[in-house]
Amino acid sequence: MNANEIRKLIEGLKGKKIDMYRKDFLLTWEKSRDELDATFIVADALRAMRDANISPKIWDSGIAVSNFRDNSTRTRFSYSSACDLLGLYVQDLDEGKSQIAHGETVRETANMISFLSEAIGIRDDMYLGEGDKYQREVGKALDEGVAAGVLPDRPTVVNLQSDIDHPTQSMADFLHLSHYFGGLDKLKGKKIAMTWAYSPSYGKPLSVPQGIIGLASRLGMDITLAHPEGYDLIPEVVELSKRQAKESGGSFKHVNSMDEAFKDADIVYPKSWAPFNVMQQRVPLLHANDQAGLKDLEKKCLENNAKFKDWECTEAKMKLTKGGKALYMHCLPADITDVSCKAGEVAASVFDRYRDDTYREASYKPYIIAAMILLGKSKDPAATLSRLLDRGSIRTAL
Amino acid sequence: MNANEIRKLIEGLKGKKIDMYRKDFLLTWEKSRDELDATFIVADALRAMRDANISPKIWDSGIAVSNFRDNSTRTRFSYSSACDLLGLYVQDLDEGKSQIAHGETVRETANMISFLSEAIGIRDDMYLGEGDKYQREVGKALDEGVAAGVLPDRPTVVNLQSDIDHPTQSMADFLHLSHYFGGLDKLKGKKIAMTWAYSPSYGKPLSVPQGIIGLASRLGMDITLAHPEGYDLIPEVVELSKRQAKESGGSFKHVNSMDEAFKDADIVYPKSWAPFNVMQQRVPLLHANDQAGLKDLEKKCLENNAKFKDWECTEAKMKLTKGGKALYMHCLPADITDVSCKAGEVAASVFDRYRDDTYREASYKPYIIAAMILLGKSKDPAATLSRLLDRGSIRTAL
Amino acid sequence: MNANEIRKLIEGLKGKKIDMYRKDFLLTWEKSRDELDATFIVADALRAMRDANISPKIWDSGIAVSNFRDNSTRTRFSYSSACDLLGLYVQDLDEGKSQIAHGETVRETANMISFLSEAIGIRDDMYLGEGDKYQREVGKALDEGVAAGVLPDRPTVVNLQSDIDHPTQSMADFLHLSHYFGGLDKLKGKKIAMTWAYSPSYGKPLSVPQGIIGLASRLGMDITLAHPEGYDLIPEVVELSKRQAKESGGSFKHVNSMDEAFKDADIVYPKSWAPFNVMQQRVPLLHANDQAGLKDLEKKCLENNAKFKDWECTEAKMKLTKGGKALYMHCLPADITDVSCKAGEVAASVFDRYRDDTYREASYKPYIIAAMILLGKSKDPAATLSRLLDRGSIRTAL
Repeated sequence: MNANEIRKLIEGLKGKKIDMYRKDFLLTWEKSRDELDATFIVADALRAMRDANISPKIWDSGIAVSNFRDNSTRTRFSYSSACDLLGLYVQDLDEGKSQIAHGETVRETANMISFLSEAIGIRDDMYLGEGDKYQREVGKALDEGVAAGVLPDRPTVVNLQSDIDHPTQSMADFLHLSHYFGGLDKLKGKKIAMTWAYSPSYGKPLSVPQGIIGLASRLGMDITLAHPEGYDLIPEVVELSKRQAKESGGSFKHVNSMDEAFKDADIVYPKSWAPFNVMQQRVPLLHANDQAGLKDLEKKCLENNAKFKDWECTEAKMKLTKGGKALYMHCLPADITDVSCKAGEVAASVFDRYRDDTYREASYKPYIIAAMILLGKSKDPAATLSRLLDRGSIRTAL
Repeated sequence: MNANEIRKLIEGLKGKKIDMYRKDFLLTWEKSRDELDATFIVADALRAMRDANISPKIWDSGIAVSNFRDNSTRTRFSYSSACDLLGLYVQDLDEGKSQIAHGETVRETANMISFLSEAIGIRDDMYLGEGDKYQREVGKALDEGVAAGVLPDRPTVVNLQSDIDHPTQSMADFLHLSHYFGGLDKLKGKKIAMTWAYSPSYGKPLSVPQGIIGLASRLGMDITLAHPEGYDLIPEVVELSKRQAKESGGSFKHVNSMDEAFKDADIVYPKSWAPFNVMQQRVPLLHANDQAGLKDLEKKCLENNAKFKDWECTEAKMKLTKGGKALYMHCLPADITDVSCKAGEVAASVFDRYRDDTYREASYKPYIIAAMILLGKSKDPAATLSRLLDRGSIRTAL
Repeated sequence: MNANEIRKLIEGLKGKKIDMYRKDFLLTWEKSRDELDATFIVADALRAMRDANISPKIWDSGIAVSNFRDNSTRTRFSYSSACDLLGLYVQDLDEGKSQIAHGETVRETANMISFLSEAIGIRDDMYLGEGDKYQREVGKALDEGVAAGVLPDRPTVVNLQSDIDHPTQSMADFLHLSHYFGGLDKLKGKKIAMTWAYSPSYGKPLSVPQGIIGLASRLGMDITLAHPEGYDLIPEVVELSKRQAKESGGSFKHVNSMDEAFKDADIVYPKSWAPFNVMQQRVPLLHANDQAGLKDLEKKCLENNAKFKDWECTEAKMKLTKGGKALYMHCLPADITDVSCKAGEVAASVFDRYRDDTYREASYKPYIIAAMILLGKSKDPAATLSRLLDRGSIRTAL
């Protein structure tokens, strides 16, 4: 895409009702369809600018806070890359891993780290009932800091994975789908199977499957959510997705059979997660740092998991999909049978065939994050992007 | 402030005798009054430039070393923000926490990290008798490296808290006071109460109260230092402050009563610290990593602290101050009674009333640090700042 | 050097056959003599530009991955400084220290961290037989990622020390020699003594001495490799160096006497290393995290080391060198007798005399790294550098 084509792309923002300035990006279902579309457009525009060696650098100084409670290589690199692309310097905030801060501490820290900050990326998916709550508390403290004149500007909070949603993942996944199928509108009526899959580990967060059904249901897709009995997601998110599917002209099925989900699917997303009630049991154990209790819970879960080893995305299962050619998706890393483990989420030959697709899927994340930041910071995103195009600085002098 | 107003502000540098080029900022009392004033002016100018979206970026590449011996969120963010604002990339130097390097190691490391470095921020306040000494050793090694032609330029060492002084804190505190009261000259004759306060923890460094009396005494203020018997600061710093208070036309009282200190005060700074002699006992225990000994010392100290729970900044005590309306200050985080602990340094209602003021107080620190770096690196700070104004680059293209 | 002089320097690139674009820099002996010369020229040019306050910034955004398996202060700062000089933001990749990733994990991680990355610096020298292999695996995964259209561009892998070679060290060392003796061509016929020296520690990597003989043998030097019996390097590297010495018109002697090596030497490089067979024994112990086994091996080695305490670079030994004035070299930190240990690699008085030289030696490393990155990324390095000179941006507005 050259500069003119990018300008055309940006024109897609016109007429859209966007109220994201000084707002945080925490859950996709809090955003209007226009706002989701705008995020996709801005992400595409930023990527196109970089590809055309047009600098998308918005800041020549500014801090992007990164607050991770785990060692996520992928999300860390996505966030760093996004912030650096826009001109922000990433400074880690390490609050310790065992306990989420509350009240006075959150309020104070949120302000102390924000005097020269433009964005705050927070990842906390371990503590059911707390991750999203914490992100909102940070946002509220920032609002107060701006209102009190303590902060010169409002940094945008970006949810890099919470207990409820994983919007940078789901939005990247669907930008991938949009490019794969030739446009977001092409997703209408497509069948997506979001299904549990066996893994020899336990405790994988719920936010990925929740994010997927929460977003697919906005786009008129036919969703089948499948998992063994007892492996429920947060009930409210499932209810919400059902409602949304109806509103967007799609459908929502909830089954206990992987085969049924795969049947005639255009897209399959087989991925392990821990049952909702296990996640609930885990929270007090994590807080108490009760290693014995955690071991015990893990043992019970793995025993239960083992009953469902046939929940694997095999060649046979793939044959059930539309023309045997559904697009396989995964947030990575996948548990690949005979490669990363003895028995896992996906057969090696299936994964092999779709490896590059999953890599491509992941490649959208930095641009989605950058778009979320830009939209939270710019009063007029189209104008900001046009200004960057007019400036025409090069990204590299190579 | 617009560019012209900032130019006027910078004119304040003219006529000042400033000998800070290639010098370090370790103790405020090693700087002349002109140099302190210059630091305040440059800090204000950098902040005003950022607020007016004029880029204060001095470097397009360059390293700022950060050397922390503890996990200080606030100072870390202040330092990162300051360096990033000027265009420097922060690289952590992690030498391990248990032992400060000496001799050959310091000399060598100081040079090895400085080939492309512009600033070195060092924080070490735990080891009484060592932090300041170490910073000087680094400075000396850098001088030798420059003299030998090994280093292309002299990085500036900024004391981010030593055993003796905490100049980035005290300078930020007084820039806050200057703005609060309408100018530094307005501080002359104002009464400031630097007083110990009860905390359920122990071992808090002496550098904050020492920094405050060491700087207040330069500005013609009436200082009252108050603490329970036995909770002494380093005697030499108290003596120095007395002398300085006299020279600057202020006064210095040293009492053992919080009430007396608060009486008619314009400003109160109630804050816990560990007694000087405890800090002395702690050093060999820390070096020996004698956990039992440290526990034992802590126990004794906390028992002793507990006798002084009435050293709390309550509403009743605030009523004693000038019109009941003294400005409350704290370097944060404060131990707030019934919020962060059962009994602490300050009553919740008092802290609540002044929360935004303490946040504002903290907001000056990044600019003070940036000013210290600029003044250590620029032969002609007024010319450098003018050049930035003439250039007129924007900080953000939002 | 002013801009015109730098242009003249860059003209040295013309006529050189350089095939480094989209290639990695892993071993100096995989590079042609023209390519080594080009690396030296680009390093000198980048340094000269910085010294002349001409910005060598090539990127206004972009990630440089750093992947260290140990805490190397020096190499870390060199790499950060190099990347920052070119405009890249350094993001650490922490894969854990005990096990090198293989297969699927390497392939996936290499792609996941590279969507917006320009360079990947990897240091792994502990596991004999694995470091270099790992770096090649990363490079291969990147090639595949580019071929599959997953990666927009090919990041360059720079070997920051492997089990086989330490090219950023050796290239910096020889750039130092080039400047010291007035040109690379002046090194022809010079005698260099790469010799083992006693150290009270064990397990120092082989990559430094291997890197030195592997590079010196390209430049027509007379090499003497000396070590006690049993302290062998990797045999293949010694054989290769012999062959190369012959081809370049130099010579290669392999002796068991430090005196013989020092005799008439122009340059001496006395440095401890662990015997090849010890390194081999260590690998399975490290993988098994067998602390007892490692302790045991260390004990045996130190006992053996202790027989060779006379392998010290003393004043007496220095007298044996050409005119008693050979240049002493070390990659630092050196084990200095009576300074950093009781008995070490070098006498304090010798080290004192050459300290500034060793610092200068180290100062070339950031520029060598920057040159390696530039050469891996630019199709036409001379054109890229000229463009930077034409642009004439300043590095600092001080």
